[in-house]
Amino acid sequence: MSESLQRQPAEASGKVRIFPAAADARDAAPPAPAPRRPRVVIVGAGFGGLEVARALRRSEAEVTLVDRRNHHLFQPLLYQVATAALSPGDIAWPVRSVFRGQQNVTVLMTEVNGVDLAARVVRDGTVELPFDFLVLATGSNHSYFGHDEWERFAPGLKSIEDATSLRQRLLSAFERAELATDPAEQRRLLTFVVIGGGPTGVEMAGAISELAHRALPAEFRRVDPGTARVVLVEAGPRILPSFPEELADTARRSLEGMQVEVRTAARVTRCDERGVTLGDTERLEAGTVVWAAGVVASPAAAWIGAEHDRAGRAVVGPDLSIPGHPEVFVIGDTAAARDNTDRPVPGIAPAAKQMGQYVGKLIAARIAGRPDPAPFSYRHHGDLATIGRKSAVVSLGRMRLTGFPGWLFWCLAHVWYLIGFRSRVVVAFDWLWSYVTAQRGARLITGRRP
Amino acid sequence: MSESLQRQPAEASGKVRIFPAAADARDAAPPAPAPRRPRVVIVGAGFGGLEVARALRRSEAEVTLVDRRNHHLFQPLLYQVATAALSPGDIAWPVRSVFRGQQNVTVLMTEVNGVDLAARVVRDGTVELPFDFLVLATGSNHSYFGHDEWERFAPGLKSIEDATSLRQRLLSAFERAELATDPAEQRRLLTFVVIGGGPTGVEMAGAISELAHRALPAEFRRVDPGTARVVLVEAGPRILPSFPEELADTARRSLEGMQVEVRTAARVTRCDERGVTLGDTERLEAGTVVWAAGVVASPAAAWIGAEHDRAGRAVVGPDLSIPGHPEVFVIGDTAAARDNTDRPVPGIAPAAKQMGQYVGKLIAARIAGRPDPAPFSYRHHGDLATIGRKSAVVSLGRMRLTGFPGWLFWCLAHVWYLIGFRSRVVVAFDWLWSYVTAQRGARLITGRRP
Repeated sequence: MSESLQRQPAEASGKVRIFPAAADARDAAPPAPAPRRPRVVIVGAGFGGLEVARALRRSEAEVTLVDRRNHHLFQPLLYQVATAALSPGDIAWPVRSVFRGQQNVTVLMTEVNGVDLAARVVRDGTVELPFDFLVLATGSNHSYFGHDEWERFAPGLKSIEDATSLRQRLLSAFERAELATDPAEQRRLLTFVVIGGGPTGVEMAGAISELAHRALPAEFRRVDPGTARVVLVEAGPRILPSFPEELADTARRSLEGMQVEVRTAARVTRCDERGVTLGDTERLEAGTVVWAAGVVASPAAAWIGAEHDRAGRAVVGPDLSIPGHPEVFVIGDTAAARDNTDRPVPGIAPAAKQMGQYVGKLIAARIAGRPDPAPFSYRHHGDLATIGRKSAVVSLGRMRLTGFPGWLFWCLAHVWYLIGFRSRVVVAFDWLWSYVTAQRGARLITGRRP
Repeated sequence: MSESLQRQPAEASGKVRIFPAAADARDAAPPAPAPRRPRVVIVGAGFGGLEVARALRRSEAEVTLVDRRNHHLFQPLLYQVATAALSPGDIAWPVRSVFRGQQNVTVLMTEVNGVDLAARVVRDGTVELPFDFLVLATGSNHSYFGHDEWERFAPGLKSIEDATSLRQRLLSAFERAELATDPAEQRRLLTFVVIGGGPTGVEMAGAISELAHRALPAEFRRVDPGTARVVLVEAGPRILPSFPEELADTARRSLEGMQVEVRTAARVTRCDERGVTLGDTERLEAGTVVWAAGVVASPAAAWIGAEHDRAGRAVVGPDLSIPGHPEVFVIGDTAAARDNTDRPVPGIAPAAKQMGQYVGKLIAARIAGRPDPAPFSYRHHGDLATIGRKSAVVSLGRMRLTGFPGWLFWCLAHVWYLIGFRSRVVVAFDWLWSYVTAQRGARLITGRRP
């Protein structure tokens, strides 16, 4: 990006100001003078950021949506790309396509690295984006609890690149086992450890087990992928801590039925290129280790020097703005929010969407001169986790679903979401089709070799 | 891969011999002693290599198919991944899946780097694969005619990684143009140069033009992708030299109708990060340059110390074996073959498939003690090239098709091929569906930033 901006007449500040340009002004270069319309800058095109922009579709606002990626990622399904059930294109869509029809949204692909609250500009090192309202929705990253050196050996899952490189590791492990002649090495290569018993870890372990025990055995001649060992390691007393206990028990039994070893109350004390160590002594020699244990907020709170909690999440008020700056909002995984009953808001997609919808409505109201809506209140719809292909645990208020009915509900929920999201039925069924048929094409080993 | 092999009891040679294991012997580790059945090693799972293995399905042979990738790539459609019309999974399939049902084929993913003709083994640095019959089908790479330093600026298109990184460059050019404030820089970023007027270059130029002029304009606010400039540069007197002249003229007119500038008799004398130079003086400032100009054979000929032509292709006899080694065959782009009428065999997919079928049948005959088939004769079915989405030029013997009928024929030809290849109708229509609907999901910018 920078190259494209260094070669232009520098202003006094040495910075270049970019103003959102209305579609009809697209030929105006150098950029037209600042429009009168209030400027809303949204950083992050995740679940939260998209909802803010969408909620402003009938507003006077000139919206600029900034992301370092060109695509919105449906993160809850990322584990399926990592395990070769879906292709990246099935769960990610260009942000531009999403707002193709919403003319007051300008999408910019660049990496923001700072905010000047006094000057009311967002910076990416070269460009300055002035704002009247700012929404920070930059999400979270993996946390290795002070052991960042483990990331090399136990990668986490946040981006398409994370997923395709994990897919490369998983599939290469089977390939290397087929080549190996030392039985011990073959066993190591066919041992997979997933660290973290939350929904991602559970779904990951189930998906790896299906890949090894169902999809691959018929295709190998020298090793039997069916003998693969999949271990799910959780430091806490049980998996799926956010779920009702009986559902967590059901999930555990389903996993064990799929030959996944579930190890609770087991703490990882070491990760290296040959496997992991549990507690003081127990050693798991493994060819592939996956990190699904913890997250830390993106540095947005630091950009604005806001008060933040131990996970780095900015503390926000009842309207999700930061103290002293009613025009600056933080939402999603980046925010330490409490709803109107003072319960902490969980770091999950539906919460991010609700926060985005709320802030979008609030900004629209302020621009229109209407009174602010009531303080943000979070509505918890429930918890879902799939366990392999045809089973899931679902908790919705008093309703509980498990096994195949749970899985059907899970599918419908996603199809419903995708229709709402892309407002194109065909895409949703495209996705369902890819998922149900488990197209082989997803099983590609790509990227530079490890 | 090597790691998995360094940790095992080294033999006298310090090498480890791998023998294909029958499916029922998959638990036998360390590997079972050499089976009596004749061993056929095929290096390369492209169009040629796959056909050899398939032609041996009813033979006594123990077939080992080696490739450094885990997938067979449908290279003729690679340009569509590079231009975001298709996803990688639409045009690549795990080699293992292809031979799932053929028990006498063992697939190994490793990179061969040498052949010992005297000892009759193939080497990858760690493993030794003994053979009774060897087929080298390792394909070709780009050639920069002595200007390898151009590759950084003008990447070619041979692998999935090439395609996704070119896709990243193409799409990022539009993103950077949207961010740029200097009109000259915006023009540069929206200028795309394709070097080489063969089918790949023609298809590439057409696809880039459609991306810029049809798919993207509605999604940008500050620049108009519709103003993008696409230049196709060919050193020779006309594009599509292998096609009948009137079809080449039709193709040129179609391209020009799609706002592609076709520059024939124009020689590239320089490539750099800002664009290309034509002849002595003419400068094209461009944000993206694509190389589709030349290929050179893979180093297989060098491995076996065989006589080769200037393009590095091994000179083979009428049965496609190399002189003095009736058990060693070279096929596809790696071979300088002449058919029974002494015409050179072109380096295209159908030729590679015919050579593979021939060599497979010949080896099967020798193993069965039957006489060799007649010398290889190549049957040229025709030439096809698409020009953007709904148009193509087709030359089949005396038949000529252009425009939409040509495109329909092109689609049917591919569906037909895919059905034959995957023997699964659903996959073929999956592909056709992705292609016709041009699913947005393919438009992802992934991979480390340039």
